[in-house]
Amino acid sequence: MHTYAITECIVKEKPVTERVVLAYSGGLDTSVAIGWIAEETGAEVIAVAVDVGQGGEDLDVIRKRALACGAVEAEVADARDEFADEYCLPAIKANALYMDRYPLVSALSRPTIVKHLVAAARKHNAGIVAHGCTGKGNDQVRFEAGITALGPDLKCIAPVRDYAMTRDKAIAFCEEKQLPIATSKKSPYSIDQNVFGRAVETGFLEDIWNAPIEDIYEYTSNPAEPREADEVVISFKEGVPVAIDGKPVTVLQAIQQLNERAGAQGIGRIDMVEDRLVGIKSREVYEAPGAIALITAHQELENVTVERELARYKRQVEQRWGEMVYDGLWFSPLKRALDGFINEANEHVTGDIRMTLHGGRAVVTGRKSEESLYDFNLATYDSGDTFDQSKAQGFIEIFSLSAKIAARRDLNA
Amino acid sequence: MHTYAITECIVKEKPVTERVVLAYSGGLDTSVAIGWIAEETGAEVIAVAVDVGQGGEDLDVIRKRALACGAVEAEVADARDEFADEYCLPAIKANALYMDRYPLVSALSRPTIVKHLVAAARKHNAGIVAHGCTGKGNDQVRFEAGITALGPDLKCIAPVRDYAMTRDKAIAFCEEKQLPIATSKKSPYSIDQNVFGRAVETGFLEDIWNAPIEDIYEYTSNPAEPREADEVVISFKEGVPVAIDGKPVTVLQAIQQLNERAGAQGIGRIDMVEDRLVGIKSREVYEAPGAIALITAHQELENVTVERELARYKRQVEQRWGEMVYDGLWFSPLKRALDGFINEANEHVTGDIRMTLHGGRAVVTGRKSEESLYDFNLATYDSGDTFDQSKAQGFIEIFSLSAKIAARRDLNA
Amino acid sequence: MHTYAITECIVKEKPVTERVVLAYSGGLDTSVAIGWIAEETGAEVIAVAVDVGQGGEDLDVIRKRALACGAVEAEVADARDEFADEYCLPAIKANALYMDRYPLVSALSRPTIVKHLVAAARKHNAGIVAHGCTGKGNDQVRFEAGITALGPDLKCIAPVRDYAMTRDKAIAFCEEKQLPIATSKKSPYSIDQNVFGRAVETGFLEDIWNAPIEDIYEYTSNPAEPREADEVVISFKEGVPVAIDGKPVTVLQAIQQLNERAGAQGIGRIDMVEDRLVGIKSREVYEAPGAIALITAHQELENVTVERELARYKRQVEQRWGEMVYDGLWFSPLKRALDGFINEANEHVTGDIRMTLHGGRAVVTGRKSEESLYDFNLATYDSGDTFDQSKAQGFIEIFSLSAKIAARRDLNA
Amino acid sequence: MHTYAITECIVKEKPVTERVVLAYSGGLDTSVAIGWIAEETGAEVIAVAVDVGQGGEDLDVIRKRALACGAVEAEVADARDEFADEYCLPAIKANALYMDRYPLVSALSRPTIVKHLVAAARKHNAGIVAHGCTGKGNDQVRFEAGITALGPDLKCIAPVRDYAMTRDKAIAFCEEKQLPIATSKKSPYSIDQNVFGRAVETGFLEDIWNAPIEDIYEYTSNPAEPREADEVVISFKEGVPVAIDGKPVTVLQAIQQLNERAGAQGIGRIDMVEDRLVGIKSREVYEAPGAIALITAHQELENVTVERELARYKRQVEQRWGEMVYDGLWFSPLKRALDGFINEANEHVTGDIRMTLHGGRAVVTGRKSEESLYDFNLATYDSGDTFDQSKAQGFIEIFSLSAKIAARRDLNA
Repeated sequence: MHTYAITECIVKEKPVTERVVLAYSGGLDTSVAIGWIAEETGAEVIAVAVDVGQGGEDLDVIRKRALACGAVEAEVADARDEFADEYCLPAIKANALYMDRYPLVSALSRPTIVKHLVAAARKHNAGIVAHGCTGKGNDQVRFEAGITALGPDLKCIAPVRDYAMTRDKAIAFCEEKQLPIATSKKSPYSIDQNVFGRAVETGFLEDIWNAPIEDIYEYTSNPAEPREADEVVISFKEGVPVAIDGKPVTVLQAIQQLNERAGAQGIGRIDMVEDRLVGIKSREVYEAPGAIALITAHQELENVTVERELARYKRQVEQRWGEMVYDGLWFSPLKRALDGFINEANEHVTGDIRMTLHGGRAVVTGRKSEESLYDFNLATYDSGDTFDQSKAQGFIEIFSLSAKIAARRDLNA
Repeated sequence: MHTYAITECIVKEKPVTERVVLAYSGGLDTSVAIGWIAEETGAEVIAVAVDVGQGGEDLDVIRKRALACGAVEAEVADARDEFADEYCLPAIKANALYMDRYPLVSALSRPTIVKHLVAAARKHNAGIVAHGCTGKGNDQVRFEAGITALGPDLKCIAPVRDYAMTRDKAIAFCEEKQLPIATSKKSPYSIDQNVFGRAVETGFLEDIWNAPIEDIYEYTSNPAEPREADEVVISFKEGVPVAIDGKPVTVLQAIQQLNERAGAQGIGRIDMVEDRLVGIKSREVYEAPGAIALITAHQELENVTVERELARYKRQVEQRWGEMVYDGLWFSPLKRALDGFINEANEHVTGDIRMTLHGGRAVVTGRKSEESLYDFNLATYDSGDTFDQSKAQGFIEIFSLSAKIAARRDLNA
Repeated sequence: MHTYAITECIVKEKPVTERVVLAYSGGLDTSVAIGWIAEETGAEVIAVAVDVGQGGEDLDVIRKRALACGAVEAEVADARDEFADEYCLPAIKANALYMDRYPLVSALSRPTIVKHLVAAARKHNAGIVAHGCTGKGNDQVRFEAGITALGPDLKCIAPVRDYAMTRDKAIAFCEEKQLPIATSKKSPYSIDQNVFGRAVETGFLEDIWNAPIEDIYEYTSNPAEPREADEVVISFKEGVPVAIDGKPVTVLQAIQQLNERAGAQGIGRIDMVEDRLVGIKSREVYEAPGAIALITAHQELENVTVERELARYKRQVEQRWGEMVYDGLWFSPLKRALDGFINEANEHVTGDIRMTLHGGRAVVTGRKSEESLYDFNLATYDSGDTFDQSKAQGFIEIFSLSAKIAARRDLNA
Repeated sequence: MHTYAITECIVKEKPVTERVVLAYSGGLDTSVAIGWIAEETGAEVIAVAVDVGQGGEDLDVIRKRALACGAVEAEVADARDEFADEYCLPAIKANALYMDRYPLVSALSRPTIVKHLVAAARKHNAGIVAHGCTGKGNDQVRFEAGITALGPDLKCIAPVRDYAMTRDKAIAFCEEKQLPIATSKKSPYSIDQNVFGRAVETGFLEDIWNAPIEDIYEYTSNPAEPREADEVVISFKEGVPVAIDGKPVTVLQAIQQLNERAGAQGIGRIDMVEDRLVGIKSREVYEAPGAIALITAHQELENVTVERELARYKRQVEQRWGEMVYDGLWFSPLKRALDGFINEANEHVTGDIRMTLHGGRAVVTGRKSEESLYDFNLATYDSGDTFDQSKAQGFIEIFSLSAKIAARRDLNA
């Protein structure tokens, strides 16, 4: 018994050296951050890279670079299906568009990455999680609110914000330590991208009178260029996209295929002034062809299959859902309860939507559903009409009675 | 004294013959309705035609036709500016899109017409107001809820709904009475239009899998046809469009000019399944180029000039406002109170929006405002940055604290 | 095979005589309605009586009276536990108070009864369901909206409303047919009661300046009379009341015991002007001692166990839930989706609430919960405080930044 | 000209010594803060005391003490009417109860005080405003969010939070500097009070299972003690209390008189667990007899005079208004726009409410209003009834049609 107790004791002992899990992208900033954090804190750094469909280098190349830059451990994960199924799909079910426009591209990827960061922290017994964000954006909140929600005991650090790791200092550090990273002049564009979309910020767009230039787009072709229209049929089952043109797809495949096809038609470009959680307005340019095509189709299928009062209320719920996710509160009690409502509302969102993709527009042209609440016989003006028009007088009289009684008073005033 | 009293008595005496004010369009149905109502009720009919920009015949022609069809009086009114200023403008300020799509075209014209109907009823001492709607649409509610709100003592009748005045019977009546109306075969399209837009219903669209054909559109060109883009700058003052490309415009002119220019680019076509107030879903096709261009511009100017919490709450208010107006409750206490909120929120919506109109899309490319809340110095990632990033840690910690405390509990469960 | 087919054909044949299921109370009105409906429609009447805790006569006595009055079948059901578990409990979880005051007493019993009526209609192959409501209240809507939701093919009739079965005529009918019912002069009070509460309407209360008199109350003693206070501890598990003073109870028992104990202290009297669904305002007096005590306790336990943002949003959901139920839309898609939200929100509402019942007031004096989010160490002003006050500056700065930027603009105006 | 220019230059010159405006109460903490701030910042301190009805010492005594403690200037203001008219009255119109219970006592006084602080800062050319709050409560946010909204250029400091001015250190400082303040042992109660109510926190209440003791209350007598009931009639005009028992009152007088009368009956005690803005739950005990009596009366007068849909929507607006004010955002664009809605909704809230005050309960027993929407002839079950019951069938059919169509689908599933 005694022996056992001692062994147990040793295993549970806190490591002499603190460990930090770092959200690692493979780029200059987070590569430098490995050594920077080690110097600032004396801790060992574990690099974690998560593939949410951002494209770019092979995960194994990234993993090796992290180790070459001084990480004591490096973990990589292909989370593309997880991202699509558990994060993008709820957004589609919620028709989530922050400020009626932005499909929450980065806001959805952050909780996905957070889950892997916290899992790595548990696995490697780390007490700190680090990320590469600055101190004026939304993403720092999304990382840290997520991390403390999944690991309330964990601490968060951000070298750029907390340890003054500026771009210039990072380049100098990189050269001094001879890290295996190119320190070429920074791209003028600050970009975040994943399979659900792409966000672009850049200096000249900070003047909100300036229009975007064609050069900044990668997921979408120029919508103004003449080309053939593309027709697509998207099938949903209980709110989930399950087939495209009759061929079964995973959610990830649905997004990818529609990124291709809607992107080729210039669909999903967004240019807006946006209210950040940190209280400032910022200019943002996004492209999200697959997201916009899917949400457009899903909305119209809801128009066909969701009862009016539920549909009206759901709009409010969608708005709050979008704000919660934008604000970084993915892992929170209200978000969970709103999901309960949204899932219930998607129970009958099953059927096919036919769309024309062309010239920057995804236009629904047909709907078909076994769960349809559209009743031809009630709606038609033809002879088969089953709607009992004699009921209308009574309805109108009583429906408008409270306003009429008020009018009787107010007109005298 | 006695003489006076008798005179008064005569004046106040109810007319021997009841009088009915009829919403008159000049077309077959309402022309027939003049005689039909007279026969059904024994009342005298007063025809009232209101121009809300629906185009078509001269008002005086319409007035004479009403008299020729048996109306004892006929009144016509050019209410185009009134419609634009008092009905379309509040909708623009509210960014009003029912079900996120429909700019309430017919729903806005009904209360305008109602106001003239009730005024005519007062003027001509009529106790009944009649309209040409069927018993299964929204417009009957909009007419009758409006009429009883402005005249709680008035009664409403609808010959099509209440006196079985079907199309076939109307044609027979017309021929029998030799009314001066062409009884040509009915157009396959059921259309309602005004300066704010145009609604089309037709038999083949009642199959919701069928796509609209080019033939049904009148306000918009085919967006798929190649053409030159058009760039426009719309200036707003406190939410009101006041200039286009620097030239002052009335609200009516703003709508008209943008109907032209956005219509020429195929902007503002809407095809949707819609939840009617009477409980059924119906397929509707709309075109509203000016309305969509103006609302798009107004929304983005709000993004620049309205504070975040006000902007978030306003979305809910806008939705309810749109439902109230769609549901025919324009003249109601809640609608008035929502207007109070919306007007307050538009106080600073002043500035210029530059848009590219092209290929069916109205895309904002620039914003300029002396009332802007966008602060370059706070937003920029350049060196002039005045945002104090050191505040972020404290903000995140406390902003996410309630969710973190809940997480600490829930993760143990 | 042929024989079988023929047999089947016979079985499925529509009965020669239509059958009507009648919501039967055992009182004069619905007893007369049995014969009245038969005479008006030629149908056979099946009486269905449902015990939702309204007290009064034995169910078997009621059953026999229905048959004596001419019903071809009579069904009775003790639905008290069903009513408590499936209708009152969701209302407790929703803290449901229409217009912040009325715990939906009658609105909850109607769908319970409806479920039994529709089941009886199916069992007895009836195509019509009848109820005893007038045409100006909420209950007719609750019956008929519920019946058509559970049986969209069923028709609804209401003899009082549709066949002019006035009180006087009912008494005459009763005497003429010598029905076994006392036709004593009607009580001056119109009452609806069940285990969740009691509603009273009466002539002198229709003058809204008149105060209620002590005489109208049955579930509650006069709160102004001096008596000893009663202390009670109510235990909840996931929003469900499961024990009183440590002794396990069903939901029905919880309501019954608190009706006794809170009623004895004069708790739960409500006197209000209320907005009916049919558009008029009416004066209502209620007493609901158990309901008010349970909701008061449940609300405070939520204050302790539900995270802030969820709690804030839940208030809106509660209001809409109450309106839906008040308006008779218990069996509707939105109501179901709101239930999904509310159940999720009740997941952690577990713990004990101690209340003092006295002098018309149910006052919470203590809360205990293993699911508590109240953290003494964060909340205390004592030395053990773990709240990091240094975070506050950053929080306030960024929390109020958007309003501050707006102020900078607006103060100059 | 030259002379003028120089004079102007001198006048506008920034003072050599920074000036701090301090929210001064006259008590130990803020008296010490005068010297403490001076030592920490080298600034001159201007003390500002605002009377919002908290009672206690004469304003002139307080003013002299501030000077004796080292303030270079001291300003005092009787803001009781301003507080009642501009801060309490909007709360009454909004029926503002945070978490359905707390009438925002302290949350209303903070912006009142802030207005005077910022005015003093302008008058005395101070760039900093200081307050006595700790770093874990709501009031620091209310002060600082308010101050930066009215003076976006001003800085805020809080000696207790920012300069570690603990109670023990403050007493030592006081004794060392021989300040003219009694340093008697601190009361066990932490109290904030004004004419709208009183908040009490204390150590033993931090155990949320402990009940409050009678000792902590000052504005209210024990409701359990037998006494005579008091009947009061409160008259409102457009939402404003204007007379009590027929005698004209200012808002301040209305609150004061009802504090007396309702307080004597033990009305307005509140004991709750509350969600603070800073993310923690805290136990709070309040007493607000006048506020609760006025809001209760106002709510019921709204029930009589406000149309149903407006009343339903107003509940949501009220909730958000309460959250905004609780959260310190009094001076913010959303709060202003909500006020616009609320004022519009109060336009017809005119009439008399009779209440019985007794045993801790303020119970409405009668309502009278020339603006009443209660229509006896529509509501009565007597023979004068003008409600057309034949309309009900049509209403119910169409009102419940969308749910019925959904049911037809869902029952088959």
